[in-house]
Amino acid sequence: MKGLFITIEGPDGAGKSSLVKRLVTAIQSETTQSLVVTREPGGSDIAEEIRELLLNPTHTNMDARTEALLLAAGRRQHVVEKIRPALEEGQIVLCDRFVDSSIAYQGQARGIGIEEVKAINEFAIEGLKPNVTLFLDVVAEVGLNRIKDKQSNRTQDRLELEEITFHEEVRKGYHALIKQEPDRFIVVDASQSEDEVFTEAWSHIQKEIHKIK
Amino acid sequence: MKGLFITIEGPDGAGKSSLVKRLVTAIQSETTQSLVVTREPGGSDIAEEIRELLLNPTHTNMDARTEALLLAAGRRQHVVEKIRPALEEGQIVLCDRFVDSSIAYQGQARGIGIEEVKAINEFAIEGLKPNVTLFLDVVAEVGLNRIKDKQSNRTQDRLELEEITFHEEVRKGYHALIKQEPDRFIVVDASQSEDEVFTEAWSHIQKEIHKIK
Repeated sequence: MKGLFITIEGPDGAGKSSLVKRLVTAIQSETTQSLVVTREPGGSDIAEEIRELLLNPTHTNMDARTEALLLAAGRRQHVVEKIRPALEEGQIVLCDRFVDSSIAYQGQARGIGIEEVKAINEFAIEGLKPNVTLFLDVVAEVGLNRIKDKQSNRTQDRLELEEITFHEEVRKGYHALIKQEPDRFIVVDASQSEDEVFTEAWSHIQKEIHKIK
Repeated sequence: MKGLFITIEGPDGAGKSSLVKRLVTAIQSETTQSLVVTREPGGSDIAEEIRELLLNPTHTNMDARTEALLLAAGRRQHVVEKIRPALEEGQIVLCDRFVDSSIAYQGQARGIGIEEVKAINEFAIEGLKPNVTLFLDVVAEVGLNRIKDKQSNRTQDRLELEEITFHEEVRKGYHALIKQEPDRFIVVDASQSEDEVFTEAWSHIQKEIHKIK
């Protein structure tokens, strides 16, 4: 693959969306290379329909394994339709959440098991790995408080209506992954200000962009 | 599990739906035990929504692995909500298509591989196996002609709009499974008349019902 595949990970309320916006502007000022900005769940027509199923708040009886399989299904379609073709053309792909989210949320926090969730995702992605993953690290209390502060602007979906212990498990899942692949992850302390988080993240991403230039 | 889990398998046009109807009547005359009649894809609310996604004829760009993962997701929900609780209560479950369909269609005919599709389904079913599987065996030409004869009554969905070679591969997939688990399968020659197919199938199912009585 000639392109550059960057993913952003972290618990809800870590500030992923704000960071993505600033990175887009920075990347576009830095290089004329094409940039694809996308997110999961979703990212292609079929994957967006799967996203609707997943986030539908009436689906309270959805089993954790059903959820993991639906996420992997949407991911497969997203990879085939959008991510892989862009990388093959040498483009930069910036994706808000990818496989690591499934492993942290379904594998660890919902208790299915990290290796089992990895295996169904391997079926979906067939070896496609991000070149670099920015992990926005924040303790559950801070992340959840940020979500509450935004409640008027943002509808809480089913996945966000979870307890603080769940978010702690999510963080534990991410840290297990970072131990397994320390070279892929850039861990940014997301309790810092938005400016500080961006500055730290951008210094790493800028280097990656120069590598492929 | 105390109940009896019967699945019906075979390529399109083998006569599964007609056989299910006659088996329902026969089972209800034979025993007072509760009977759950169901089918895949679908069988529970969430699984039916996944079915709609799968059979939507506009989704011509759906990747085979997306399809396999969506089928496994629907199956998981169907097992958790409907099949497993019924079997735990000692009921009889009669299901039109189950894991074997995914292995024959996506694993063999769409070329993903039998073992890979088995693995994601194992994630979904966690060891649940049918006690007995009726396989309606018919060569592709006969099955496809039967579908064409019914065209006025039946809308062809996306999965049925496939070529004859595809159906031959499906049959090959089923026969590979029968070799692996000859004791679970009852192979019925579905080129026979509906009456003959029913009589042969019923003689086997009747014995299974007497075992659990």
